[in-house]
Amino acid sequence: MADLGTIADELVARQGHLSLQYGAGQGTPELRDAVCSVMAADGIAGADPEHVVITPGSQAAIDTAARMLGNPGDVVVVEDPTFVGALNTFNTWELDAVSTPTDEEGLIPALLHTTLQQLRAAGRRVAFLYTIPSYANPSGALMPAERREEVARICREEDVLIVEDNAYGQLGFEDGPVAPIAAAHRDQVIYLGTVSKIFSPGVRIGWALVPPALLREFYLSAESAFVCPPVFSQMLSTAFLTRFDWQAHVARCAAEYALRCDALVDEMEQSLDPRVTWTRPAGGFFVWSRMPDGLDTLPLMHAAAEAGVVFVPGGAFTPDAGPHPHFRLAFSFVAPEALREGVRRLAPVLNGALPGNP
Amino acid sequence: MADLGTIADELVARQGHLSLQYGAGQGTPELRDAVCSVMAADGIAGADPEHVVITPGSQAAIDTAARMLGNPGDVVVVEDPTFVGALNTFNTWELDAVSTPTDEEGLIPALLHTTLQQLRAAGRRVAFLYTIPSYANPSGALMPAERREEVARICREEDVLIVEDNAYGQLGFEDGPVAPIAAAHRDQVIYLGTVSKIFSPGVRIGWALVPPALLREFYLSAESAFVCPPVFSQMLSTAFLTRFDWQAHVARCAAEYALRCDALVDEMEQSLDPRVTWTRPAGGFFVWSRMPDGLDTLPLMHAAAEAGVVFVPGGAFTPDAGPHPHFRLAFSFVAPEALREGVRRLAPVLNGALPGNP
Repeated sequence: MADLGTIADELVARQGHLSLQYGAGQGTPELRDAVCSVMAADGIAGADPEHVVITPGSQAAIDTAARMLGNPGDVVVVEDPTFVGALNTFNTWELDAVSTPTDEEGLIPALLHTTLQQLRAAGRRVAFLYTIPSYANPSGALMPAERREEVARICREEDVLIVEDNAYGQLGFEDGPVAPIAAAHRDQVIYLGTVSKIFSPGVRIGWALVPPALLREFYLSAESAFVCPPVFSQMLSTAFLTRFDWQAHVARCAAEYALRCDALVDEMEQSLDPRVTWTRPAGGFFVWSRMPDGLDTLPLMHAAAEAGVVFVPGGAFTPDAGPHPHFRLAFSFVAPEALREGVRRLAPVLNGALPGNP
Repeated sequence: MADLGTIADELVARQGHLSLQYGAGQGTPELRDAVCSVMAADGIAGADPEHVVITPGSQAAIDTAARMLGNPGDVVVVEDPTFVGALNTFNTWELDAVSTPTDEEGLIPALLHTTLQQLRAAGRRVAFLYTIPSYANPSGALMPAERREEVARICREEDVLIVEDNAYGQLGFEDGPVAPIAAAHRDQVIYLGTVSKIFSPGVRIGWALVPPALLREFYLSAESAFVCPPVFSQMLSTAFLTRFDWQAHVARCAAEYALRCDALVDEMEQSLDPRVTWTRPAGGFFVWSRMPDGLDTLPLMHAAAEAGVVFVPGGAFTPDAGPHPHFRLAFSFVAPEALREGVRRLAPVLNGALPGNP
């Protein structure tokens, strides 16, 4: 923080004529270069900075994709469950989010294929598939390389563009990143990255790697929404990615997140009724958990809040009607002992909602 | 810049846990307080910070208004000419921009009334009126207080919401701000402000003062597009507005802009054929100029660029079909002598396009 502060001083005091001024709508060349090195670490070799568009956070890139690709009434195919922020954006564009099932390894290719075929048979236009293959929000699922290939093949056959959101790919607890779908299928994927999980969410810097044929339209759509991304934020992010050992920093973060995940899961094992289940993630921020079928976690959220702990109920992560037995626990921001205390507060609420418990 | 740099250092080194972290979607309470003091200086007394939503630049607030208020095919009534960035946003939302005439004092109330009546008779739904009453982009027009009242009255009668964009209101060369329409008509106006013209465009900080009945929807629409505005940018903007004499700074800027405008117009008087005409603005950034009827300035833009000077052709500022004899000259960013040189480069292009000139 101290070193970054000194850089912030320089960026304003000596380069204020740049950092406080309008910048290019596509983002600064320096940051577009720097994020190509991040993508290289993610497994996308040789990305061209000319095909990168910087956005004020990854959410703005999701929004830009919807703006550009969707017409009202079109379908966006999403994972069940998927990121609530994406669902909100699709909703404002009057896009119809249609979910397709996932398991612990993310999208199930055969069922995705069925979903796309059914939509085609029903005459629906599919604007794109929105997927989070690595340590997904909220499921934590990591899609293996073979499935990624399968998904790319199916989408190519069905002529469906992919919007691949890779906010968490570098946050594996033990293993390195699995190459994004975009790595080998550049022309059929709008790939979204962000510094939110490797540097800072408050600077609001994300980016899209866009197929050349779509680049101009993407860039103009983005500009129509926000003119240009914040310039100081871009310059500070560039400094972080070029003047610090950011990969060592991310590795330290991932190691800490692994400890936090361990603490959370350990306490869940000790305190929760065995009928409460979850998937232990291999990276990312979330433990995706569930109550038995038929229970809905929305009312339990209110009871939990009264007990001094919050979670996000499963209904937030799907366009489908409930009841939703799932719930999302987030461990990234909270120290291990606080996570344990959170579970201890949660336990009477969850356990008490189960049939037969007092 | 040096003082701001020191503050930037503090904000990152000592308050990085805040400035680099996610912030509230509505914006920080401190900045929402501070922009209420800016609005007070603009003539809006007693704005409630709870009714303010901070956005990543004013463009994002225009986009949020369109997102929230418009359905595809709805009409947005705009001034002819109006801000090109707003037209671009309305276009992505499939809103139909319908222009209504202006003169040197902005919107012409009787003609606005006619436009609204015609739209109603045609069964069109009007999402809102978009207007820039003070030193408009591109026209430079300043709407007098009585016209503002008239516009508010007409819109109330016709049940049309107003989106009032006040980016330039503090930049009068001689006179203080004219009170915004929102000052006396809070419930029928979404008022948009920005620090872009009084502090920094690169931080990307704008805001909306929203009628209470629309606040929740506006805030959620904004959040669906960008989660939260950049936090460091908000904190630096707050520092500028609370730790510096920002009104003295703006007065110095306006005085400099007045000198630049004088230089530009003086050289235009000397170098341009009398058939090239313009409106001398009383504030803001632009001299709205025109060639004789029938000429289109788009091809002249290319010729001017070859001569080493650029302007924006009038067609950019209207949804209507051409030819467009107008063009916009911007003087804010360019020193007086460079402005004179620009006009000298422009003169042969413009003069040479006039009938009878060599």
